[in-house]
Amino acid sequence: MTELTSTHLHSESLGPVLIIGAGLVGASIGCALTAAGEEVHLRDAVAEHAQVAASRGAGRIEDVSPEEVGVVVVAVPPRAVAKVVEEALDEFPNATVTDVGSVKNSVLQALVGRGVELSRYVGSHPMAGSHHAGPITARADLFEGRTWVITPHPAATPGVLATVEALATECGARTVVMPAGDHDVAVAAVSHLPHVVSAMVAAGLNDVAPEHLQLAGQGVRDVTRIAASDPGLWEQILSENSTALAIQLGALGERLTDLSRRLGAREDIRPLLERGVAGTRAIPGKHGTAPQQYAHVIVEIPDSPGSLAKLFADADTAGVNIEDISIEHEQARRTGWLSLAVAPDREETLAKAMVDAGWSVVSNV
Amino acid sequence: MTELTSTHLHSESLGPVLIIGAGLVGASIGCALTAAGEEVHLRDAVAEHAQVAASRGAGRIEDVSPEEVGVVVVAVPPRAVAKVVEEALDEFPNATVTDVGSVKNSVLQALVGRGVELSRYVGSHPMAGSHHAGPITARADLFEGRTWVITPHPAATPGVLATVEALATECGARTVVMPAGDHDVAVAAVSHLPHVVSAMVAAGLNDVAPEHLQLAGQGVRDVTRIAASDPGLWEQILSENSTALAIQLGALGERLTDLSRRLGAREDIRPLLERGVAGTRAIPGKHGTAPQQYAHVIVEIPDSPGSLAKLFADADTAGVNIEDISIEHEQARRTGWLSLAVAPDREETLAKAMVDAGWSVVSNV
Repeated sequence: MTELTSTHLHSESLGPVLIIGAGLVGASIGCALTAAGEEVHLRDAVAEHAQVAASRGAGRIEDVSPEEVGVVVVAVPPRAVAKVVEEALDEFPNATVTDVGSVKNSVLQALVGRGVELSRYVGSHPMAGSHHAGPITARADLFEGRTWVITPHPAATPGVLATVEALATECGARTVVMPAGDHDVAVAAVSHLPHVVSAMVAAGLNDVAPEHLQLAGQGVRDVTRIAASDPGLWEQILSENSTALAIQLGALGERLTDLSRRLGAREDIRPLLERGVAGTRAIPGKHGTAPQQYAHVIVEIPDSPGSLAKLFADADTAGVNIEDISIEHEQARRTGWLSLAVAPDREETLAKAMVDAGWSVVSNV
Repeated sequence: MTELTSTHLHSESLGPVLIIGAGLVGASIGCALTAAGEEVHLRDAVAEHAQVAASRGAGRIEDVSPEEVGVVVVAVPPRAVAKVVEEALDEFPNATVTDVGSVKNSVLQALVGRGVELSRYVGSHPMAGSHHAGPITARADLFEGRTWVITPHPAATPGVLATVEALATECGARTVVMPAGDHDVAVAAVSHLPHVVSAMVAAGLNDVAPEHLQLAGQGVRDVTRIAASDPGLWEQILSENSTALAIQLGALGERLTDLSRRLGAREDIRPLLERGVAGTRAIPGKHGTAPQQYAHVIVEIPDSPGSLAKLFADADTAGVNIEDISIEHEQARRTGWLSLAVAPDREETLAKAMVDAGWSVVSNV
């Protein structure tokens, strides 16, 4: 962290940065840039948001002379992005303008369609995945080590792209440059399509009889978890990316319809399942490295205060680094199992230590 | 538990029980019935499985006189169920025969199709959701408080249904009686359809460019988690339930195709998202009670040995019962956040205690 900060201080200043929209992402960018020594100003349609963000160290709320602003970051809800970018290009004549919305091509097309001069604009999208949307949760290191996609276009000057890259780098992010259309196809595949599918499966549960829902296990809970997200935000994201998303949804719908026919004809479903397993392994693993296979030590855990603390203390005594944890609560019973993911060569050590400490351990043969 | 055992001891004996198939489910039934005072015999095509199950307290491996057997439990892989049930009805002339396969109607139809006399057969399905399939993981309380579906048919005598209900109750399960067809429609909706959808989304990731996969977050990981399950087992389950599943898959495929058209026409996706949120709330919550809303305290957690132990020790000191936990590992960074779910009226206490103990806490406003 010290090393990182000193690197930041050596880089050239971006000039005063104005952040428009002081939600989690905007305020966190403010915190990161402030920590890196930049002068940051905040603006939000709701004055209180800017105040809260300022109190979190995201910048100052007093105005800055429009001519002096070096960079404007537009961090407003998806539907407002294009309009605010256009206004910012007009109001701040010397500034590089970027936005951090989660859909990129519709914004670019809207700006082009309005005939906006775009030499000083390049869109971007930091992949910061928190569900917490207010400035109170802002943090300077929200983007550290995360991917920050930057989406240049032919009308932008090279210097503007470099400035946005510098901004993302100052926030600690790893930049990836791709055209806006590619970005939207990518997030359609890895985010928007899974979201719609999750919502569709969850929506179907409304038509399932309550006694049938008693048969629900962990699988359907996993698949439908993200369907519980804020419909207001996702409506905007999905609508803004409707072109890329519609194509992929249509293809998936056809594959499902086709599969239903082949299943009806009792054709083999195994190839799909094998491809599914391969697909889960295609997702990059923890810390951006290649997917790693962990061993899992399953420990029975009473549903009472203190048991988790004791369990982790015992695991710690064993000197084994726990890579991941998950609880599967068993419906209608008062105990569950805790799955401790560890490096395969540490499984036996941990399992033995936990048994020795008096835990009931279920281990794979 | 003591109370439960004494209830079990008061109930009438089932007579010698023979369990055919000593995997996790068969062996666990053996453990539960043995613990309840029943005489249990084990048989498995792989002799070692029966031996391991016996060593886990699931019963004995020596043969029993066919005329004496009171109940046969068929716990073999899905595709073998009908054949083994037919053989068991023939070999054990006085026994009630049940199976515990996860699909019910195809077995019943296969038996009817072969002209098997079914007065002594009633199918069933304990909803025990572990991924661990071997007898080494057998446990007497695997079914305690879980749903055990029993699927009678017109040819079965009432006494046979009562015997299977008694067996499930002795294992500690809560019985639900429904026709085999209803059961299969229910598991198609709450288990098989989500599984196929998860596999389909995961399979699609094989066609996504590696640089695009760098944009994957937690959502797609949740949706595709069950797609990593054993294709061999799921191939059998899904194929056996292909009729009910094909209908639901076809309907879902049509809904997706239809949605893709409406999205292309920029129609509102919000009603689907709202229905999705409602659907996630329709799933019964922890311990079979109504869904409960928890508050979440988010704590930053260094990725190093010892930190989880200290965290839970500190949470324990605060005297707050943690209802659920989840880690979101941040890609390409060495820290993550732990989300601690607690009763809403305990959130403030826990958040304050963790801050006082030196943790970095992110709390909702």
